[in-house]
Amino acid sequence: MNSLIFWPIPIASIIALVFAWIFFKSMMKGEEGTDLMIKIASHVRKGAMAYLKQQYKVVGIVFLIITLVFAFLSYGLGVQNGWLPAAFLMGGFFSGLAGYFGMKTATWASGRTAHAATVSLNRGLRISFRSGAVMGFSVVGLALLYISIWWVVLDTFIQAPDPRYKTMIMATTMLTFGMGASLQALFARVGGGIFTKAADVGADLVGKVEAGIPEDDPRNPATIADNVGDNVGDVAGMGADLYESYSGSILAAGALGAAAYINADPGHQYGAALAPMLIAAIGIILSIAGTFFVRTKDGATQKELLASLEKGINISAVLIIVASFLALRWLNFPNYLGVWGAIVVGLVTGMIIGKTTAYYTSSEYKPTQEISRNARTGPATVIIAGLGAGFISTAIPVLAIGVGTALAFFFASGGLDLSNINAGLYGIGIAAVGMLSTLGITLATDAYGPIVDNAGGNAEMAGLDPEVRKRTDALDSLGNTTAATGKGFAIGSAALTALALLASYFESVRLGIVNAIRKSGSYLFPDGTEVSSLEGISGLSLIDMVQSFEVHLLNPKVIIGLLLGAMMAFLFCGLTMNAVGRAAAQMVNEVRRQFREIAGILEGKSEPDYARCVEISTIGAQKEMLFPSLLVIFVPVLIGILFGVPAVIGLLAGGLSSGFSLAIFMANSGGAWDNAKKYIEEGNFGGKGSEAHKAAVIGDTVGDPFKDTSGPSLNILIKLMSMVAIVMAGVTVGYSLS
Amino acid sequence: MNSLIFWPIPIASIIALVFAWIFFKSMMKGEEGTDLMIKIASHVRKGAMAYLKQQYKVVGIVFLIITLVFAFLSYGLGVQNGWLPAAFLMGGFFSGLAGYFGMKTATWASGRTAHAATVSLNRGLRISFRSGAVMGFSVVGLALLYISIWWVVLDTFIQAPDPRYKTMIMATTMLTFGMGASLQALFARVGGGIFTKAADVGADLVGKVEAGIPEDDPRNPATIADNVGDNVGDVAGMGADLYESYSGSILAAGALGAAAYINADPGHQYGAALAPMLIAAIGIILSIAGTFFVRTKDGATQKELLASLEKGINISAVLIIVASFLALRWLNFPNYLGVWGAIVVGLVTGMIIGKTTAYYTSSEYKPTQEISRNARTGPATVIIAGLGAGFISTAIPVLAIGVGTALAFFFASGGLDLSNINAGLYGIGIAAVGMLSTLGITLATDAYGPIVDNAGGNAEMAGLDPEVRKRTDALDSLGNTTAATGKGFAIGSAALTALALLASYFESVRLGIVNAIRKSGSYLFPDGTEVSSLEGISGLSLIDMVQSFEVHLLNPKVIIGLLLGAMMAFLFCGLTMNAVGRAAAQMVNEVRRQFREIAGILEGKSEPDYARCVEISTIGAQKEMLFPSLLVIFVPVLIGILFGVPAVIGLLAGGLSSGFSLAIFMANSGGAWDNAKKYIEEGNFGGKGSEAHKAAVIGDTVGDPFKDTSGPSLNILIKLMSMVAIVMAGVTVGYSLS
Repeated sequence: MNSLIFWPIPIASIIALVFAWIFFKSMMKGEEGTDLMIKIASHVRKGAMAYLKQQYKVVGIVFLIITLVFAFLSYGLGVQNGWLPAAFLMGGFFSGLAGYFGMKTATWASGRTAHAATVSLNRGLRISFRSGAVMGFSVVGLALLYISIWWVVLDTFIQAPDPRYKTMIMATTMLTFGMGASLQALFARVGGGIFTKAADVGADLVGKVEAGIPEDDPRNPATIADNVGDNVGDVAGMGADLYESYSGSILAAGALGAAAYINADPGHQYGAALAPMLIAAIGIILSIAGTFFVRTKDGATQKELLASLEKGINISAVLIIVASFLALRWLNFPNYLGVWGAIVVGLVTGMIIGKTTAYYTSSEYKPTQEISRNARTGPATVIIAGLGAGFISTAIPVLAIGVGTALAFFFASGGLDLSNINAGLYGIGIAAVGMLSTLGITLATDAYGPIVDNAGGNAEMAGLDPEVRKRTDALDSLGNTTAATGKGFAIGSAALTALALLASYFESVRLGIVNAIRKSGSYLFPDGTEVSSLEGISGLSLIDMVQSFEVHLLNPKVIIGLLLGAMMAFLFCGLTMNAVGRAAAQMVNEVRRQFREIAGILEGKSEPDYARCVEISTIGAQKEMLFPSLLVIFVPVLIGILFGVPAVIGLLAGGLSSGFSLAIFMANSGGAWDNAKKYIEEGNFGGKGSEAHKAAVIGDTVGDPFKDTSGPSLNILIKLMSMVAIVMAGVTVGYSLS
Repeated sequence: MNSLIFWPIPIASIIALVFAWIFFKSMMKGEEGTDLMIKIASHVRKGAMAYLKQQYKVVGIVFLIITLVFAFLSYGLGVQNGWLPAAFLMGGFFSGLAGYFGMKTATWASGRTAHAATVSLNRGLRISFRSGAVMGFSVVGLALLYISIWWVVLDTFIQAPDPRYKTMIMATTMLTFGMGASLQALFARVGGGIFTKAADVGADLVGKVEAGIPEDDPRNPATIADNVGDNVGDVAGMGADLYESYSGSILAAGALGAAAYINADPGHQYGAALAPMLIAAIGIILSIAGTFFVRTKDGATQKELLASLEKGINISAVLIIVASFLALRWLNFPNYLGVWGAIVVGLVTGMIIGKTTAYYTSSEYKPTQEISRNARTGPATVIIAGLGAGFISTAIPVLAIGVGTALAFFFASGGLDLSNINAGLYGIGIAAVGMLSTLGITLATDAYGPIVDNAGGNAEMAGLDPEVRKRTDALDSLGNTTAATGKGFAIGSAALTALALLASYFESVRLGIVNAIRKSGSYLFPDGTEVSSLEGISGLSLIDMVQSFEVHLLNPKVIIGLLLGAMMAFLFCGLTMNAVGRAAAQMVNEVRRQFREIAGILEGKSEPDYARCVEISTIGAQKEMLFPSLLVIFVPVLIGILFGVPAVIGLLAGGLSSGFSLAIFMANSGGAWDNAKKYIEEGNFGGKGSEAHKAAVIGDTVGDPFKDTSGPSLNILIKLMSMVAIVMAGVTVGYSLS
């Protein structure tokens, strides 16, 4: 039975990678277009690869240092499981690999998409969607493969007298294995976000505003950097982000499942621990099936295009709901029906958040149109309206996650009281897995956006027929809607994953206490309870531990943590916003310098130095990403050492509650400004070139770091703080000063 | 002994009111200036009074309805103490009265300040500072008088066998008495904030930007409304806000003191419960003493002026530290030294927050200068830089409150563990009282700002010598610095007060349980514990209650509350920002209409219809303030009924942690944009009229609702949610569905 449950998981992961390869090959068969198109695409590709090389160099050094620290903690102090250093490195590597595959594909695909768009809209959609699918299936395939490999390794090496303890130890050990992916994701999001927005803002400010040349004009030295940015930020960054949510949610739910069913039949507990992976495996296969429903007849309208994308996702979702019911019935652990309910809750919650995001950011609805209307009275009112709409847009997603959390808990535990808290928390964890089960296909529709964006840039720079640009613009606009939905998923799943990690944190703490008892014979809880045997600590229920750690809201340590956690989200936003500002200022100076020093640029007679702009964005991003990212690692450790477990839990809860709202606010304000500008460009309130349009462009520029740097990075901040806390639980328990 | 402790309190409150009267009389002796000045001042005064009349009418209706609800809850359902309806009405009345006194004074003073400034800078400072002091001492005097009256009333009517229970019941009953002031304050802040910014933004957009006439130009129809706004928003709103923090902190600390010393000698417990009022009384007397040190020689520089204001505050603070030590030693309850330490911590924390606010918003320091520098590349970079700086500026205040909370708890309880939690929470409560003990004088330096701002407007409109405007501008700029410090105090004290209210919430819950047991014989806690006797519930320690209510961070109800609480802060900001946007749009239309329809306005030949603009702002404010304000009342009640005590505590903690950072962010971004614009106007980066200046004006306009509407209203949101929860604890306990 055991291997029968397990083996579908790695098999599904390999199928995902095989399909990613097939989609890649199919895309590469497309034609690259004219010489100029090839040259432009090669500029972008070279720039993107140059960035990635530099990025991975810097990140590699950080990873090596942290691996050494982990090795010291593991083999020197013994407060860490010995697998962590290797798992950390490998997690970072796999996550980076997923970003690399996605970006490599995207940079090969944009020229081909532009060329396909010369033939038909439909051809353009097909090639770009396929390329997005490479990313989607690389992410889910690599994540599940990574988890499968470690499951086999731990299964081989870990010994325990009772099979239930073995499952528990394996699941809890693997919980710490997400940190490598988290850290890689943060660097990818922050670095990529700074790169892309420095280039974008810099290109806009000098090119559009000062020199008065259009967007994506080849005369603008920063235009290649801008297009490179779409790839390194929106493709590689987004991929690493969701790789991280995906693996984090599976690992957290697995640990919660092992804990929830610790007193059940060993086979049932094993099933509950593996269920998240199995649901993920089912999701992969049915997402692949869904991609084959994404097809349209030639000459389809934009609405029909969107419908065809949504059809693919919806078919996958419905199939997953059915198949996961069958799988859980097969596993047959107690209350599997409730667990299935939690999966459905997760999927539905994700869809609600996605639809809300679309409502608040699409120009088809009132909020964004109102922002456009406010452009008539100038930039100040555009900004105020956009901020106001963004603030208000937090309400429904937060309500959805709140209600979803309650329902998932309720279904899985059979009530809202805490008599069955472990099962309830498992429900929350598996709801996150449910929400992300369609990731293969949702990420495909998401990664497709920057590809068509780049295709548009390529068409513009290569001087193709305006009709082609119109087609890529139609695809791009469609991409904006799917990207909004995708961002909603990214934020929603981050919140649920962080909640699951918050709960599973205590299992890591328990392992830390086991270490402490092994070393010094006993452990003293803050409330005065002393435990001096391994049986004693194993026998403590979650509620016992929560009470002994006094993790309640009147404990000043919890309050301090809560305040600091909330503040961390704000501080992080400020640091990343300022980073974009500084990097963009350097870009502005460079573009001005080239306009001044390289004769004939503006007449189109000589080529600007594109590579120099890419280099400036790269250096800026590398320099600026380190401090905020390292802060996210150090603060949970420091707080843990100063104030112990209660403050850490407070920190995570504060970061989650405040960071979630802040992330939605920033993503939606930014998205709405972007589309408010486009709405005016479509001819409303004066159209292109009007005063209203100028005001809306300013709103869009402000929104750039909102939606592409600070906002999405917050998703990872929330999860990475939890991951660091989980990994460092041993240090917090063993070396806390209070 | 008892009366010896008590009577200094009402005496001090009356002394405060007497001094307020003396300062008022002394201001009224000043000359009003030319006929035109008198006429302008009378326009502003009439507008302000018209607004206040309308405001109090609407608020009065809301108060009547809520009083009826409270009467029903008290006498019908019996879940409320019978004093509440009267106390609620009276609290609202006193808070409104404080605002009325302050505003009345301010509107009489601005013309006189303008006239005094024609003589000398120093004369202008003296008259405006005296007028600010009327406000400061009205607020503290009325608040302490209100508390004293109720203390005497309850002392007369409440009977209890044990004097310690009597003190406890009195203190806990009075805890609910702050809600009237809170609600009045919210209406004042939100209504005043919408009024002032609708007028300001409307006046700027059409007057400055479209018609190109300077600020405070009498040809602008919205200019009187703009000046009225300074009075209703910054004077009456700020006064009601701090009245609320002041009385709330005293009441919360009193209840915490009574609970902390419930097992001590009755006299000592009585002393601990009254200590917050006594410290406040001492603060009043020594603040009055401080005002007499605010004097400068003629021809003083601005730095010297600021130094003289700070000298007054610092002398008060030092004297309060010494006198409160003596007072506590006289009361001599156990660990009075630790409690004194908490007072000092509160005072120092307030100063740190004030200084930080000044650092991040004054153009003398790098952050604001950086924002100015960013104006050279246009409005987008100004906005990004201002938001970035605002986000970052949350770090130090949150750290200060976090560390201050820990230290206050530590000093008062003798450790950071929870063995003496009641004493520790009392320490947090009394730290809030300590922070606000200098309120009489700090509020004077704060309310003085809008008075000189109006004086400048008066001088401009009356066409006085530019030298006079220069002097009022110097005073105004000084006022900006003191206002920043004042805003820092308002936010910091709100956070500490909310923390104290969070802790004292459980005492209200305990009373609710007493009612439930009286009614149905027993009460079942969420964790299954059942209590069926009044002795049983009285005997439960705070920690017992916290554990029985399962108020920990793994309870999904707490998590839901936390997420919703954080979201409430964002939603509230969005609603108020949009309200300003809508009201400002109406103002824009009205000003445009007047320019169009009233011939000769722009040539200065005919007078604009000022009153109509005041009316539009008034109607807009009244219409827009209701929904967000009522939301703040309903949500805690609804959450309590749906999910019970754990969710309410989560809601309050989420609102506090996220709202605190959000409030600082908004206040500081707004303040920094304002001063960044002024910095450019002083001749930097191109000076007045340059492109950089235009960009900075846009930043300033965006900042208007940040710093004067949404940001400061958040202070009250945090406290009012706690107050509502406390008042409705009986309903939550008796009628919760889960």
